Amino acid sequence: MLIHPDRLFPAEPGTRRIARTLYEQVRILPIISPNGHTSATWFAKNEPFPDPAKLFVQPDHYIFRMLYSQGVSLEDLEIGQTALKNPRKVWRIFASHYCLFRGTPTRMWLDFAFQELFGLKQRLSEQTADLYFDTISEKLLTPQFRPRALYGHFNLEVLATTDSPLDSLTDHKAVRESNWKGRILPTFRPDPVVDPDFEGFAGSVAKLGEKTGEDTSMWAGYLNALRRTRGRFRELGCTATDHGHPTARTANLPTTEAAELFRRVIAGSADAEQHELFRAQMLTEMARMSLEDGLVMQIHPGSARNHNRKLYERYGRDVGADMPMPTNYVDALRPLLDQFGNERDLTIILFTLDESVYSRELAPLAGHYPCLRLGPPWWFHDSPEGMMRFRQRITETAGFYNTVGFNDDTRAFLSIPGRHDVARRMDCAFLAKLVAEHRLEEEEASEVARDLAYGLVKKAYRL
Amino acid sequence: MLIHPDRLFPAEPGTRRIARTLYEQVRILPIISPNGHTSATWFAKNEPFPDPAKLFVQPDHYIFRMLYSQGVSLEDLEIGQTALKNPRKVWRIFASHYCLFRGTPTRMWLDFAFQELFGLKQRLSEQTADLYFDTISEKLLTPQFRPRALYGHFNLEVLATTDSPLDSLTDHKAVRESNWKGRILPTFRPDPVVDPDFEGFAGSVAKLGEKTGEDTSMWAGYLNALRRTRGRFRELGCTATDHGHPTARTANLPTTEAAELFRRVIAGSADAEQHELFRAQMLTEMARMSLEDGLVMQIHPGSARNHNRKLYERYGRDVGADMPMPTNYVDALRPLLDQFGNERDLTIILFTLDESVYSRELAPLAGHYPCLRLGPPWWFHDSPEGMMRFRQRITETAGFYNTVGFNDDTRAFLSIPGRHDVARRMDCAFLAKLVAEHRLEEEEASEVARDLAYGLVKKAYRL
Amino acid sequence: MLIHPDRLFPAEPGTRRIARTLYEQVRILPIISPNGHTSATWFAKNEPFPDPAKLFVQPDHYIFRMLYSQGVSLEDLEIGQTALKNPRKVWRIFASHYCLFRGTPTRMWLDFAFQELFGLKQRLSEQTADLYFDTISEKLLTPQFRPRALYGHFNLEVLATTDSPLDSLTDHKAVRESNWKGRILPTFRPDPVVDPDFEGFAGSVAKLGEKTGEDTSMWAGYLNALRRTRGRFRELGCTATDHGHPTARTANLPTTEAAELFRRVIAGSADAEQHELFRAQMLTEMARMSLEDGLVMQIHPGSARNHNRKLYERYGRDVGADMPMPTNYVDALRPLLDQFGNERDLTIILFTLDESVYSRELAPLAGHYPCLRLGPPWWFHDSPEGMMRFRQRITETAGFYNTVGFNDDTRAFLSIPGRHDVARRMDCAFLAKLVAEHRLEEEEASEVARDLAYGLVKKAYRL
Repeated sequence: MLIHPDRLFPAEPGTRRIARTLYEQVRILPIISPNGHTSATWFAKNEPFPDPAKLFVQPDHYIFRMLYSQGVSLEDLEIGQTALKNPRKVWRIFASHYCLFRGTPTRMWLDFAFQELFGLKQRLSEQTADLYFDTISEKLLTPQFRPRALYGHFNLEVLATTDSPLDSLTDHKAVRESNWKGRILPTFRPDPVVDPDFEGFAGSVAKLGEKTGEDTSMWAGYLNALRRTRGRFRELGCTATDHGHPTARTANLPTTEAAELFRRVIAGSADAEQHELFRAQMLTEMARMSLEDGLVMQIHPGSARNHNRKLYERYGRDVGADMPMPTNYVDALRPLLDQFGNERDLTIILFTLDESVYSRELAPLAGHYPCLRLGPPWWFHDSPEGMMRFRQRITETAGFYNTVGFNDDTRAFLSIPGRHDVARRMDCAFLAKLVAEHRLEEEEASEVARDLAYGLVKKAYRL
Repeated sequence: MLIHPDRLFPAEPGTRRIARTLYEQVRILPIISPNGHTSATWFAKNEPFPDPAKLFVQPDHYIFRMLYSQGVSLEDLEIGQTALKNPRKVWRIFASHYCLFRGTPTRMWLDFAFQELFGLKQRLSEQTADLYFDTISEKLLTPQFRPRALYGHFNLEVLATTDSPLDSLTDHKAVRESNWKGRILPTFRPDPVVDPDFEGFAGSVAKLGEKTGEDTSMWAGYLNALRRTRGRFRELGCTATDHGHPTARTANLPTTEAAELFRRVIAGSADAEQHELFRAQMLTEMARMSLEDGLVMQIHPGSARNHNRKLYERYGRDVGADMPMPTNYVDALRPLLDQFGNERDLTIILFTLDESVYSRELAPLAGHYPCLRLGPPWWFHDSPEGMMRFRQRITETAGFYNTVGFNDDTRAFLSIPGRHDVARRMDCAFLAKLVAEHRLEEEEASEVARDLAYGLVKKAYRL
Repeated sequence: MLIHPDRLFPAEPGTRRIARTLYEQVRILPIISPNGHTSATWFAKNEPFPDPAKLFVQPDHYIFRMLYSQGVSLEDLEIGQTALKNPRKVWRIFASHYCLFRGTPTRMWLDFAFQELFGLKQRLSEQTADLYFDTISEKLLTPQFRPRALYGHFNLEVLATTDSPLDSLTDHKAVRESNWKGRILPTFRPDPVVDPDFEGFAGSVAKLGEKTGEDTSMWAGYLNALRRTRGRFRELGCTATDHGHPTARTANLPTTEAAELFRRVIAGSADAEQHELFRAQMLTEMARMSLEDGLVMQIHPGSARNHNRKLYERYGRDVGADMPMPTNYVDALRPLLDQFGNERDLTIILFTLDESVYSRELAPLAGHYPCLRLGPPWWFHDSPEGMMRFRQRITETAGFYNTVGFNDDTRAFLSIPGRHDVARRMDCAFLAKLVAEHRLEEEEASEVARDLAYGLVKKAYRL
């Protein structure tokens, strides 16, 4: 057996009993996945997933960053190849290093999928590599393992993708126009056209103009183009935007200054500080539009992207070399909050890679401003210990109801049930401790557990 | 039953037994409250407290910041009104949102007061709102609920208020001259006359001159005025000062430079950096005076006051919109410590809103400098998890004896026993874990528990 | 009994059983001590240790910083005296303040030595001071308490010291040339000749030139002198270097710029920022040499040395007044990692005094770059709670295999077994929790426990 029915529950028997009871009530609730990086194409085309290595290893930077840290080369893992030449060899390398993942959430997510989806019962290792490869390969060809069938099997109610304003969203349209009932929604992620440091920024802004018929060489036309594109996303069910800036800095410049800043930025004559100021201004503009059109705003700041220069030059973005940075919120968000902080119809969900801000900045901010909510532990912190730290440091100031349930934030579709399972178990473990220590009644904990697993995400993301 | 006799004790039965035994020994000790924001007027006049809403909701920014974060308007809560127009309506709003406080210390403090003082047994909710309102209203009119009677009932031994140097301390005098035996002491909090950014600073300094007969337009006279005022406070039993600066920065300028800086500051020609430098200098001046007159010095840095601009413009200070900031101590305190750090007759108690400094800066500083002691978890961190983090991160470097017991730091008089109860239980829970893991003998833990609840505060604050 | 067989194991009985089983397997493993501050002279001369005060109190700044913080004077402890005038008096002062160490690791280490080495069974106190003094004094004169005998008794396999490039390493040579089998290895710690702020820097660089026959007034000769000295250390078994910089900043200047910077630094005409840049450049140079000669590189940044000015002026370095500072790694290490980050044959072990970087910076960096490994909790954080925080915050991102086992980092030879015992127990406690919560199989935990106690340190330090 790879995973135990009582996994992640506190060892103390009384507390474990409470956790188990709470979990039984949330285990069966549908999964809402409001923020992630799966592909709408899968659901539009509904073709079988490829081999185990392509499915599990290649897209998952949690996996290959760990292998890389211990001396496995990315060449040997065929990272960056569109079709794998030797998937079985890649799989064997992964399998023979599986012990590196002891104590990590990656191991829990994978073991969940291996056991619950593929019926595997022996731990993955050099010895079982081929058994795994063959078992998984075979199942992937069956109808039950097609994307739409899995969506149903996973008990998904909504699945949001993350999309560029330049994306045509053809696959989203195709899904909507099919007679399949799954809800696959786009999320508006404008980084490529609001971050001057994004590769090809000026060209992307020009393209945005073409696509929308607006003059994006001028500030007003640029804003209109964004507004129109948000409208196009909303027509396909989009309820949220997402913003991946280096910092949480916001600005609220007078229109003429903002227009002038835009002119410089688009002309390529702005310096690094002006790029940062422009991103800051754009967060406030996005908040303004959210207040108009009702899209929930997510801010994911604080990642030093592409930290490994040589790997970036060779493989490009998203190869597991993004690193967290200290992130400030209390000062950074002030201009935006001065303008919109007291709006009850606006929802801004804050994320962080800097856990020191949980109790120092995020909980106090979210425990006061009506527009603010706290996103779940993100990225490196989306783990049992990380989730426990989040609840322990957030709850006493912000309570449960300024949080928004779980995000799986994944590219790995097959890991979705396992990830939500870990989150639900950890929330039940946290609540069970409160009950066992007489800080909450069991009946209350049961209501909160269901809200954390289902109610809050639905409400916060307006789904 | 709202509160359980074993609340906050660890769930593991053996550890719980130890915690319970330790707690039984400290439960009965008198309460010393050396730092808070209650009003001496209550004890001078000894009049009944007003209605439940005015008593519990209106003064407590822990409560209304949470309500506000979830969309309740401050108008509906009648915040800022001196007399409530519709206290029952305010109470009902609060009651119907009581579930927001699940998992927060506010809920523990309130439930303690509801059950232990007012005999209530059903949880507060929309349904029980009127029952609560009527029960509490009725009791508040009885003699046992007058301020002086409650002081006795709470087993208070000392209660310190926090007072401006401009305060006449008439109520403190009245209490001392009455034949009531309660000890209500003032605390010297000079922020209005040492922080150039405080509203009305220059005017307050001028007034200080009038009150003391010193020429506070000159550096020497200004210092003398402060010295005299400290003397006036000491005559009324004051043993401590308190300093609420944005940062912990200190400075130690030559007299002529300090005098020149004061001249600019008082003339209104100093810039923001000079204001900060002036506050820094004043911490060192206050330390110098403490060494002279024996007043214990408390520093509460790191709060970004009045973060919500619109609420500040409308309601003024202290409406729950102060936010913590990252705070440095190791560099910031250096000038002061260079001068006075090795003085054994000086006591400086450090507080923080930035938990990342507990193990990194505060414990190493307090575990070395003879003049330094660590204040208990403050504000947002004055909570079960916050207290546990404090002990876990402080004790191994600074030990128990560089800490100073508990502060309730509250405006809510009725919450005092509940707050001390939480602190005592958490200290016993921490100690019980040490005993259960054989890191401390039970007999030693028992001695430490009594010191944390009573001995250390008395010694540190010279009470 | 001073120490309990189950000390530090979780109280929950099932988890404790697992911890005990794991511990039984690692208890008997040899101790590898790859980083510390013991003296090779002890093993070269093999003379008896002096009295208890000189042995336990005087060299241990963990002890006297705590006493000092509570008002004991350093004069009374005879700190800085080469021979103690009144060791019994010093010992009595220490004994009568022993309660200050409740809840600290110092107490655990001391009690281990008192009971396991000296057979003492009553707690140290004013009452038992003389009993301790006499018992310890007597045993220290017996052959079993000579340094070499203790090395064997402690089951040490390797013990590394920390040495200046100017050290002749005579004692190391003497040990190697003796027929004693103990492995005492030097560690190359070049701070005195690479940190321009080190006392006597320029003179030390000149001396380095004399010792190596290189012209250390020029950049190329200076680097060669370092290279040669590393060779001299390697010949005596050295496998590692150590670098104690104020920050983790690195630089990678073109040769001509580096040479010019060196010229200024050595001429004494560089400013503070240039000193910092020079240190930064030297970390990269040291990494380059490590890639050539295979020495493992340790970086210990983030200590504000000699924070107490008056004590420094009177007693010099290392009197317990070093304070941790916030430390950045993600930006600071970038120049070095740009150059060498992807080298699989280079090992750089990172330490920190800033726990907020564990999950935010160190685990993500070590979980990606092949050259990086994480050193164990250091200094103030080398404690039960500190070790638990390290594992809880590191493991989920970096796993177990990017860590390198335990360092005792001590000047107190007799505390070595007690320190390793605490580390082994805490790792078993952490693993037991993972097993009890079904996050790891017991068999896997057993393998990991042995790796953490023995395998990883041997591999990482190339011993």
